[in-house]
Amino acid sequence: MNAIILSIGDELVLGQTVDTNSAWLSQKLAAIGCGVVAHVTVADDQSAIERAICQAARQCDLLLISGGLGPTADDLTRQALAAVMNEPLELNEQWLGELEKFFAARNRPMPEANRIQAMIPRTATMTFNTAGTAAGIEAALDPKKIGSGAIFPSPHAPPASGGEKIAPDPIFSCRVFVMPGVPREMKIMFERSVLPALREKSGGAVIFSRTLHTFGLGESAIAEMLGDLMRRDRNPSVGTTVSGGIVSLRINARFGSVAEASEQLEQTVASSREALGALIFGQEDESLQVVIGRMLKAAPGSTVATAESCTGGLLGKMITDVPGSSAYYSYGWITYANQAKQELLGVQRVLLDQCGAVSEPVALAMANGARDRARSTFALAISGIAGPDGGTPDKPVGTVCIALAHPGDAHARTFLFPGDREFIRERSAKMALTMLRYHLLGQKAPF
Amino acid sequence: MNAIILSIGDELVLGQTVDTNSAWLSQKLAAIGCGVVAHVTVADDQSAIERAICQAARQCDLLLISGGLGPTADDLTRQALAAVMNEPLELNEQWLGELEKFFAARNRPMPEANRIQAMIPRTATMTFNTAGTAAGIEAALDPKKIGSGAIFPSPHAPPASGGEKIAPDPIFSCRVFVMPGVPREMKIMFERSVLPALREKSGGAVIFSRTLHTFGLGESAIAEMLGDLMRRDRNPSVGTTVSGGIVSLRINARFGSVAEASEQLEQTVASSREALGALIFGQEDESLQVVIGRMLKAAPGSTVATAESCTGGLLGKMITDVPGSSAYYSYGWITYANQAKQELLGVQRVLLDQCGAVSEPVALAMANGARDRARSTFALAISGIAGPDGGTPDKPVGTVCIALAHPGDAHARTFLFPGDREFIRERSAKMALTMLRYHLLGQKAPF
Repeated sequence: MNAIILSIGDELVLGQTVDTNSAWLSQKLAAIGCGVVAHVTVADDQSAIERAICQAARQCDLLLISGGLGPTADDLTRQALAAVMNEPLELNEQWLGELEKFFAARNRPMPEANRIQAMIPRTATMTFNTAGTAAGIEAALDPKKIGSGAIFPSPHAPPASGGEKIAPDPIFSCRVFVMPGVPREMKIMFERSVLPALREKSGGAVIFSRTLHTFGLGESAIAEMLGDLMRRDRNPSVGTTVSGGIVSLRINARFGSVAEASEQLEQTVASSREALGALIFGQEDESLQVVIGRMLKAAPGSTVATAESCTGGLLGKMITDVPGSSAYYSYGWITYANQAKQELLGVQRVLLDQCGAVSEPVALAMANGARDRARSTFALAISGIAGPDGGTPDKPVGTVCIALAHPGDAHARTFLFPGDREFIRERSAKMALTMLRYHLLGQKAPF
Repeated sequence: MNAIILSIGDELVLGQTVDTNSAWLSQKLAAIGCGVVAHVTVADDQSAIERAICQAARQCDLLLISGGLGPTADDLTRQALAAVMNEPLELNEQWLGELEKFFAARNRPMPEANRIQAMIPRTATMTFNTAGTAAGIEAALDPKKIGSGAIFPSPHAPPASGGEKIAPDPIFSCRVFVMPGVPREMKIMFERSVLPALREKSGGAVIFSRTLHTFGLGESAIAEMLGDLMRRDRNPSVGTTVSGGIVSLRINARFGSVAEASEQLEQTVASSREALGALIFGQEDESLQVVIGRMLKAAPGSTVATAESCTGGLLGKMITDVPGSSAYYSYGWITYANQAKQELLGVQRVLLDQCGAVSEPVALAMANGARDRARSTFALAISGIAGPDGGTPDKPVGTVCIALAHPGDAHARTFLFPGDREFIRERSAKMALTMLRYHLLGQKAPF
């Protein structure tokens, strides 16, 4: 089964609303082994909807449509579907009864405009909406019944009268479900009516997925380490994506049974973990700060303090993103000026003068000063040049020194991060957390 | 000009990532009067990408593509575009040079895989990427040059050898821009290279736009104050959007001439400013922290310090988002634990015991303690319950006390913010900046 998800709405193509329905539906379809060929979004424009339905029907056997079922003049999905099916819209008495009950319960007369919400193409089936006034529609697009009227010439083409007649791709049987665009109504209708109908038909194939996150190396370095695991024709497949410097692996296993998909997924997850080792810090929705928090909690009494210059509080903010972080985090200093580094953390003036604020000795002094004052197990310090100004030939924008003070010692490293101010600061804070993570693992970072 | 926005990525059609690029691009295109016909999303599958490009090219004269430009085997957008254009991919020496410089600056050899990121179709133009390693591509799809090889039969159709030959819709000239899928890189490339190129070509009617930002009141309160300015049929039109607690007004003036659009826009901007007064803190890409920074710089020698509990460094991070913030910001304390509030800021133990950490007296003591220690003009302090735990009937989750210490005095206010931990922390930091802003304006906040 191959699906296309079609979303209808002016607010979507105008960018005023982000379409979250399509991603949600895709996940639900993946879980029953139904591949998704494409997401398509068009405006509340009947000919655009008709064209989109026709194009989709040539490329999939399941078409899920959401939106355009409201009672107002700009809701045109049912009219477009009827036109493609070459059928009239007919009143569904059962849903009209539901609508009348709905308004009667609210002591209001049913506005005439709502009557359209009970109209569906002649051979279609009405789908109950338990959360709103728009009935859903289930229909079959049958190539033998679809007239040429439904095939739209290119908008660039001359008018049909004088122009060439374009032969359409053949449309094969495609099953269509139309749902409301309001996410809540759509989700309830999908779970209640559409999913059970699809489960009946899906010939058993199952997709199981896992996402693993890494930080520290770039996408191509990770790909090199994964080698054959990323082969395009591999099943389970392994792909990578990057967001905020975090390179994530998405592993998808498509198999005929739950048992096989699950076992194969776990095998590929294990192979990926073997290839990347400690580079993988977490999976699914785990962030670096959540993982660090769990590690610190696992060693009761372990605490961390922060001393920040160029990140200006971002590292503390990230650590405290995690509910319950007060168990291991109490003290942080933002020492944006040299004088603050001296006064609050005891950094020696001579160090600042001789090495500069962005130097490993100063970062080490900041970390040690913070650890002493907070009486914490660990302290992280960051001093760098986030730009856009302040770079020199020796220390260009992106130069960041990060230090970790820990029981018995401290160490520091210098990084050169690419990108703009925001990106450099984000990378700096994540790298500080990563240095603590490798220390807690008792391992040396491979970068 | 009619556009289609095509997004490429397995993670998108699988529903693992919500596509936000398309909505962002749509808004940008709307602002220059370019209509969007459709959003389309397909997987990292070369033939699917080729088909999508061909279909789109029949329906629009501008195709914006994002995604699939990475260095790994599953990044296939450039290959698909080259196939549709019937052209080979050729190495762009200029971008190869940039890549080599990028890796040389990091003392790493360029992985062989990254070489593909400098390849573009023969007649295409390379677009600079200032934020990553993937060059963008600008190309023209010319119907005379596009071979039939690029036209894909329906997946349901019999194989080409034995089957019917389907005549394609004619493809007229369509301009294509390919950008990276990473939202940050895409946005920078669009603003820097694509938008200026599009502005040159959009002729005729002129749309002038302005965005004004407010913080402190909800969308419906702002709408009430704007009254008739928000009438649907008004030109210039005034609409509101909300993001991160900031209610923004988007004003669009569509007129036949630059002079008229500009004059009408300025008149509506003036009316909006009159209706909302000091609630409007900035316009376009101005953030609260940028505006505060400008105000502090305007009174030379003015400085601000921060003392944060529940926001854990977010306020300091926001203030230092602004390049040059070292002119007015040097000292910040993250006192996440009561003991830290006592030790670092001199908050009296008795205050903490009697009033609780989340109280106006404690927030005032934090602000005064920070101002004294930093010898700053102003100090902002935040203490609150960001949740999800820690709420009580008296002080539910979302209760936040914010204090401002200033020459001669200090004042504090208690807020109850809705939403989750992240939202409460974000609102708290923005409200602290807003309290400072009203103080600097010498005005009382209307909320």
